[in-house]
Amino acid sequence: MSKYSYAYGIDVGGTTVKCGLFQVDGTYVESWEIPTRTEYNGVNIVPDIAETILKNMEAHGLTQKDVAGVGIGVPGPVRDGGVVSGCVNLGWGEYHVASDLSGRLGGIRVEVGNDANVAALGEQWRGGGQGYRNVVMITLGTGVGGGIIIGGKILAGAHGAGGEIGHITVNRNETIPCNCGKKGCLEQYSSATGIVRRAKEVLAAGNKTSLLNIETVTSKDVFDAAKTGDEAAVSVVQFAGRMLGQAAATITCVVDPDVIVIGGGVSRAGQILLDAITKYYVPNAFTACREIPFKLAVLGNDAGMYGAVRMVLT
Amino acid sequence: MSKYSYAYGIDVGGTTVKCGLFQVDGTYVESWEIPTRTEYNGVNIVPDIAETILKNMEAHGLTQKDVAGVGIGVPGPVRDGGVVSGCVNLGWGEYHVASDLSGRLGGIRVEVGNDANVAALGEQWRGGGQGYRNVVMITLGTGVGGGIIIGGKILAGAHGAGGEIGHITVNRNETIPCNCGKKGCLEQYSSATGIVRRAKEVLAAGNKTSLLNIETVTSKDVFDAAKTGDEAAVSVVQFAGRMLGQAAATITCVVDPDVIVIGGGVSRAGQILLDAITKYYVPNAFTACREIPFKLAVLGNDAGMYGAVRMVLT
Repeated sequence: MSKYSYAYGIDVGGTTVKCGLFQVDGTYVESWEIPTRTEYNGVNIVPDIAETILKNMEAHGLTQKDVAGVGIGVPGPVRDGGVVSGCVNLGWGEYHVASDLSGRLGGIRVEVGNDANVAALGEQWRGGGQGYRNVVMITLGTGVGGGIIIGGKILAGAHGAGGEIGHITVNRNETIPCNCGKKGCLEQYSSATGIVRRAKEVLAAGNKTSLLNIETVTSKDVFDAAKTGDEAAVSVVQFAGRMLGQAAATITCVVDPDVIVIGGGVSRAGQILLDAITKYYVPNAFTACREIPFKLAVLGNDAGMYGAVRMVLT
Repeated sequence: MSKYSYAYGIDVGGTTVKCGLFQVDGTYVESWEIPTRTEYNGVNIVPDIAETILKNMEAHGLTQKDVAGVGIGVPGPVRDGGVVSGCVNLGWGEYHVASDLSGRLGGIRVEVGNDANVAALGEQWRGGGQGYRNVVMITLGTGVGGGIIIGGKILAGAHGAGGEIGHITVNRNETIPCNCGKKGCLEQYSSATGIVRRAKEVLAAGNKTSLLNIETVTSKDVFDAAKTGDEAAVSVVQFAGRMLGQAAATITCVVDPDVIVIGGGVSRAGQILLDAITKYYVPNAFTACREIPFKLAVLGNDAGMYGAVRMVLT
């Protein structure tokens, strides 16, 4: 048995920092949020996190000896080994977050991960990938993020780009650049932004669709219309699913996971999205990988906090 | 210090089994070969291996207590956990090679891996990937194989398909099927077979080329002609390089390795091949991965034996 009793999971977002206290057996105790102070290149963020943890420890009568560690997910690339090589949204450049935070906590162990990778670890541990050791998570939000868990551990990558599957090229004829500078990235078609872009193209082409009645079309509107059988909306969903299914078939040739978990805001569309993906995944997949299941993420915004604490429970 | 002194690395091929004796510090002692008896669904292969190891142990005065383990690479899928799920070339179906061989060796530890993955581990340990922990190896032979090493360990995959990068789809317009049943796999363009196929198409199109003077064109002929500036041959090499470069850009978005090692018979072409790959890799790669180096494999046919023993030295 571990001599420690508790651990913390911290998920640093662009506006709030989500903090969770857990027992070392993984039992959730409580969670709370503090604001992310991004001004002055984010110099206050780590001190604020240290302060809120120390306060929480005091409230529970915990000392350094009771805390196994603090896991922290940050919105930027984290290299194999734990160095954060810049978080644009937080104002951070190259920054050894682990040693800074650990120093402020009297030497408590700190592990750092990229937020998408950490969320994937959370889903593998307690979410849609529970029970599986090898998990690919694809997060469909404003962009397309991803995380790869092999043998229960994050595949961070040599440059922090492990699981950057939103930037797999899926269309070599694209003329419009992606945010990353390349052209034809998965993110350009299967993110919420990409789905809305495609819907606008379909509208501009003069197709008859219920989407015409909506002032500002969202990706949720597209899925809702597709669920009612609206043909134009169905075609937009199918296109997003095709790009995801083809990309997933490529990913499984590389890492051959037990399961693929689909998360992020767009995944709230549910089964219609999974059906559109698997329709194109199966015929494009390598034979041995054809039956890999697709599941929906279940932890929502808590995935990062769960994954963060998981990093210090092993 | 380990109490063991020696370990064996075994590479099972379709015609010969390559066997190597190593000290546990990794020092090579000696190697030899025995024939692979594939008749009767390969029932003799594992007993033959056990016999040759026991003989070698006797010759060196070794007992079970002196041998840390036996690593063995086999030409078929090996699932995460070590179960061989069929080797067509050997006549094997689902087969727990590790427990069979271990039983015949008086309980010595046995670890099993897929031959391409094991060769990748060998190159990571002592070859083109030496000094790096995260390595992608692409093997260009009759087919296109691959192996992925993360943190010094093989990524086997849930179905033994980890690193099956020859079956990444790189051309969605292909009409001819790959051996795997899909269409447009990397293997169809960048294997020795694929390069010869492309050369024949170029010849059939009536291009003026020095390849016309060769009765049966091989991939080596194509590279040799390209090195002299033969335009048709250069176009064939560029095409193989483009498919490889684009596929590598996809792979690095997924696993972000420290280095990519190119091996197999085709890799003997050398720098001209690396140049053709990187020309297409760099513009297609995710920014953080753009400078990942490409290196040639150096162990040749010994890679499997080195990788096999490495599995039992950790």
